[in-house]
Amino acid sequence: MVEAVETMDGWYCLHDMRTIDWTSWKLATSEERQAAIDEFNNLLTKWEAVEEAENGSHVMYKVIGQKADLMFMFLRPTMDELVDLETTFNKSAFADFLLPAHSYVSVVELSKYQPQKDGVDPETLPETQARLKPILPKYDYISFYPMDRRRMGNENWYTLEKNERGKLLYEHSKTGRKYAGKIKQIITGSIGLDNWEWGVTLFAHDVLQLKKIVYEMRFDEVSSRYGEFGEFFIGNHLKREDFAAYLHV
Amino acid sequence: MVEAVETMDGWYCLHDMRTIDWTSWKLATSEERQAAIDEFNNLLTKWEAVEEAENGSHVMYKVIGQKADLMFMFLRPTMDELVDLETTFNKSAFADFLLPAHSYVSVVELSKYQPQKDGVDPETLPETQARLKPILPKYDYISFYPMDRRRMGNENWYTLEKNERGKLLYEHSKTGRKYAGKIKQIITGSIGLDNWEWGVTLFAHDVLQLKKIVYEMRFDEVSSRYGEFGEFFIGNHLKREDFAAYLHV
Amino acid sequence: MVEAVETMDGWYCLHDMRTIDWTSWKLATSEERQAAIDEFNNLLTKWEAVEEAENGSHVMYKVIGQKADLMFMFLRPTMDELVDLETTFNKSAFADFLLPAHSYVSVVELSKYQPQKDGVDPETLPETQARLKPILPKYDYISFYPMDRRRMGNENWYTLEKNERGKLLYEHSKTGRKYAGKIKQIITGSIGLDNWEWGVTLFAHDVLQLKKIVYEMRFDEVSSRYGEFGEFFIGNHLKREDFAAYLHV
Amino acid sequence: MVEAVETMDGWYCLHDMRTIDWTSWKLATSEERQAAIDEFNNLLTKWEAVEEAENGSHVMYKVIGQKADLMFMFLRPTMDELVDLETTFNKSAFADFLLPAHSYVSVVELSKYQPQKDGVDPETLPETQARLKPILPKYDYISFYPMDRRRMGNENWYTLEKNERGKLLYEHSKTGRKYAGKIKQIITGSIGLDNWEWGVTLFAHDVLQLKKIVYEMRFDEVSSRYGEFGEFFIGNHLKREDFAAYLHV
Amino acid sequence: MVEAVETMDGWYCLHDMRTIDWTSWKLATSEERQAAIDEFNNLLTKWEAVEEAENGSHVMYKVIGQKADLMFMFLRPTMDELVDLETTFNKSAFADFLLPAHSYVSVVELSKYQPQKDGVDPETLPETQARLKPILPKYDYISFYPMDRRRMGNENWYTLEKNERGKLLYEHSKTGRKYAGKIKQIITGSIGLDNWEWGVTLFAHDVLQLKKIVYEMRFDEVSSRYGEFGEFFIGNHLKREDFAAYLHV
Repeated sequence: MVEAVETMDGWYCLHDMRTIDWTSWKLATSEERQAAIDEFNNLLTKWEAVEEAENGSHVMYKVIGQKADLMFMFLRPTMDELVDLETTFNKSAFADFLLPAHSYVSVVELSKYQPQKDGVDPETLPETQARLKPILPKYDYISFYPMDRRRMGNENWYTLEKNERGKLLYEHSKTGRKYAGKIKQIITGSIGLDNWEWGVTLFAHDVLQLKKIVYEMRFDEVSSRYGEFGEFFIGNHLKREDFAAYLHV
Repeated sequence: MVEAVETMDGWYCLHDMRTIDWTSWKLATSEERQAAIDEFNNLLTKWEAVEEAENGSHVMYKVIGQKADLMFMFLRPTMDELVDLETTFNKSAFADFLLPAHSYVSVVELSKYQPQKDGVDPETLPETQARLKPILPKYDYISFYPMDRRRMGNENWYTLEKNERGKLLYEHSKTGRKYAGKIKQIITGSIGLDNWEWGVTLFAHDVLQLKKIVYEMRFDEVSSRYGEFGEFFIGNHLKREDFAAYLHV
Repeated sequence: MVEAVETMDGWYCLHDMRTIDWTSWKLATSEERQAAIDEFNNLLTKWEAVEEAENGSHVMYKVIGQKADLMFMFLRPTMDELVDLETTFNKSAFADFLLPAHSYVSVVELSKYQPQKDGVDPETLPETQARLKPILPKYDYISFYPMDRRRMGNENWYTLEKNERGKLLYEHSKTGRKYAGKIKQIITGSIGLDNWEWGVTLFAHDVLQLKKIVYEMRFDEVSSRYGEFGEFFIGNHLKREDFAAYLHV
Repeated sequence: MVEAVETMDGWYCLHDMRTIDWTSWKLATSEERQAAIDEFNNLLTKWEAVEEAENGSHVMYKVIGQKADLMFMFLRPTMDELVDLETTFNKSAFADFLLPAHSYVSVVELSKYQPQKDGVDPETLPETQARLKPILPKYDYISFYPMDRRRMGNENWYTLEKNERGKLLYEHSKTGRKYAGKIKQIITGSIGLDNWEWGVTLFAHDVLQLKKIVYEMRFDEVSSRYGEFGEFFIGNHLKREDFAAYLHV
Repeated sequence: MVEAVETMDGWYCLHDMRTIDWTSWKLATSEERQAAIDEFNNLLTKWEAVEEAENGSHVMYKVIGQKADLMFMFLRPTMDELVDLETTFNKSAFADFLLPAHSYVSVVELSKYQPQKDGVDPETLPETQARLKPILPKYDYISFYPMDRRRMGNENWYTLEKNERGKLLYEHSKTGRKYAGKIKQIITGSIGLDNWEWGVTLFAHDVLQLKKIVYEMRFDEVSSRYGEFGEFFIGNHLKREDFAAYLHV
């Protein structure tokens, strides 16, 4: 019987992609549009206060291509706060001009493949806590995609021994480390919460590094033989101060 | 020729997910909204009376993410009652503001892999009857997903001998038992009734336990080699007393 | 080179599933609704006359879950009559309140795997003719699903010798025979006509028997190793006398 | 390195399926409907003149089931003429009452698996030219489906030697020849043009022969081991003189 | 551990397919239509100025079949310019008559499988720069499709040694070279950016060559055993001077 691995879990996460109905937006009066922007700015202010207080975090990106126009990523200490946040967003005037495009529910996750050092539970370490409850970077670019570990014939992640899995992941992490300073990666677990097993969110200053890291990692055995990947969303940072200009028609 | 296993079957089950059309909801007058809420409260009262009389059960959850806004799970002694219930719901004023998002039809199921004790048919036992006709828990969180047993090359559940299947399921149940008190699990069978073979509904006080149990179980051979999983829906309990507030705009 | 099997083919078949647009239905005036019901009752009367004259048959069921609200199954001697029937239905006032949900085109089929008895062509026998042009039972429940025979590596139905296929189907039929009196099964062939190779329509007095037969049959080698199954539709009989009440709002 | 086969290519082909929005059609005034029919009849007249001049061909069928209501198949010497034809159709008044249902882009194709006779390039023969630029038969029934040759493990069409592929196709053609006079088959190639590799269009006087040929051919090794099939569309011939009656409401 | 290959990356790329809502377009007044065309012509003028200044490139094609009506391919030095371009397009009056049909995000890519000549980094060569930042040809026909390299059992591109991959790609390039002068091919990489790993855009004077090259290449081992292909879009060049006539109703 193969041993599972324990996970450490942090803030709950909602990726929320929306498409702007530009035709309706243009049909609205400029007063209606301004009211919708004002109300949404109030939401943004509230969310920023939450982030300021380190009770959660969020980012807002413009999606390239037709999969969506806006991608939000929200982190909150409880799933209840995420539902409330989503419901409040849905009730807002701005949401009347948005169509749901995609969403993903998960929780920030770290795994305990490495043996404990000096008998200290890594979950108690401040650096672990910081990684479990991260303030999201406001880098210029984001890439989000969900993934599974393969369970197919001889390529079955879930029948590999734990130390074998740990070794493959360790090799993988070495590829990741080459991109230190260029890429910030947040892994969220979603088994039992959404359709794939994990979500991967990558932040970059240089969009090309997003392609380079995912390409290089695909040659790691953990990806080449055990990775299954879903839909990719790529975004460009939308600063709050550019929000009104972005919506100007 | 491989021997099938007999099942014991209880109440019929409908998982019913709906998306709220918030734009229409806001466009309605407050009288229209109130009338819709009042009428739906009457439905809830009727359904509660059914549960009170132990002639069925139901729960209502807020779904996190864009797959749906509301998830209902209904149990009734006959399929006819489920159709009637669904039709009445569809005719209600509240349903005018809802879009169908997903549904799943099944029946509460227990399997007879264990040999009879003392020649007693387990279906006659009160504890079995209670499990076949369960009053659904009103825990804070729910996770629902459908599943199949794999039929692929050497990994074919339906060509395994019955005692081999029983052994694998018994191992699996031991993982489940670790979550006693934390997770309440209801298995519903849907072969011939809906697109997958079983539905799994998990209730938890702590949403993280939903992820932990599904993750740990994935390493059980019955899942790693024989499980195929569908779409996951995750919900947060919506108490009746919070229903109007949830819909307030 | 593997030998194909000859089929005997009877009436052409259309499964026609529709979703009711309850919001539009309620928005109609009661005169409009009554006119739509009256016109549809005229269609039902015509279809009943066809059945009376043994020139075809039909049934009408309420579908459980959101896949559809109504499922019709129509049998006619020619494909042309099916198209005409469908077009007349589409032009009816009631159809203005229906959304297409699914359909399936096939023809009642029996296969000649068994050797001829006494040199008599089985297709000439009255009992064969009755099975090829069946008056559909009006049982309380229906289950419909399409299926393929697998063509995958070593599990390739179409490379098995004819007598091997016949043997596997014969074993399968023994499982079916256990449900005599409980289940009425109609096999329709759809290779070249629709996306799957066969349609299976099961009628039952007790809905649970639909699940039991499909479950038990899944362990037959012809299903476990050679069956691929599509979407399942489950319905509850809608008697003509209950039609208006069902639509009452 | 496996040798490809040369193809001979004729007229370009567009399969164009549309669903009639009967509700809108009925809401239109009878003048609007008549104008739409008149304009469409003008299009039909133009298309018939093209066919008369042997500069192309077309057919019109009623589709059975909900996949579409009308299926057109257009052949033209250039892709440009097909785009123009489609654009003109889209701009017509009748198209306002049609919803796009499906389309397929390809080109009439013959392959050169057979060795040349007496050093004559088969493409220069009049009988080849007639097959590459066919006037489509107006048989009572049509079946259209796309297909691929499998590339999966040991069943990889594109790694088979050319003479092996030729042999398998020759065996296959013998099955086809049994249906001479009953079935007219047109193969169109679509690699690089649409999602599948080929389109198969079958015409029959007796709809049952469409099922029989596709069923029997599935046992040919070229299909059983190397065929992957897409969606099937089945239609009943709509004669021009019946067009107005078909649309009468 | 298999070695990845370095890529050279050029301009960012957006394939943008749109369907024209002809019914709305006809319902608009001729003034509204003219205004939409005029505004869009201004966009085209701006995009042409960008191309003139060699700061990007674009093409516009009419799509054959119902997948879309228009296909644009945009190249820009930064992803930010692509988002801006797309947003401006979305806000235009013409976009009110367009429905999103498909999009694809990638970046022009060349790989460094060949060893360096004389120690010169190929990325520094003017001919490489020209290929990374190409002015798109205005050929009569375009074919676009995305693709993956297979990762399945023994057919796993990402576990092949780099020199083996290089050899297979070199063989493949020889097939491509046969079409020199007939086909212009642009490869764009999309790992981490969109759902497939690469996009392939082919331009041709003779549409038949698009089919011939993709067919012939399918027999190359790199395609037959390692290629997975997505949806194909085929288009006919829409010259700017024909734009108004194309839209005339």
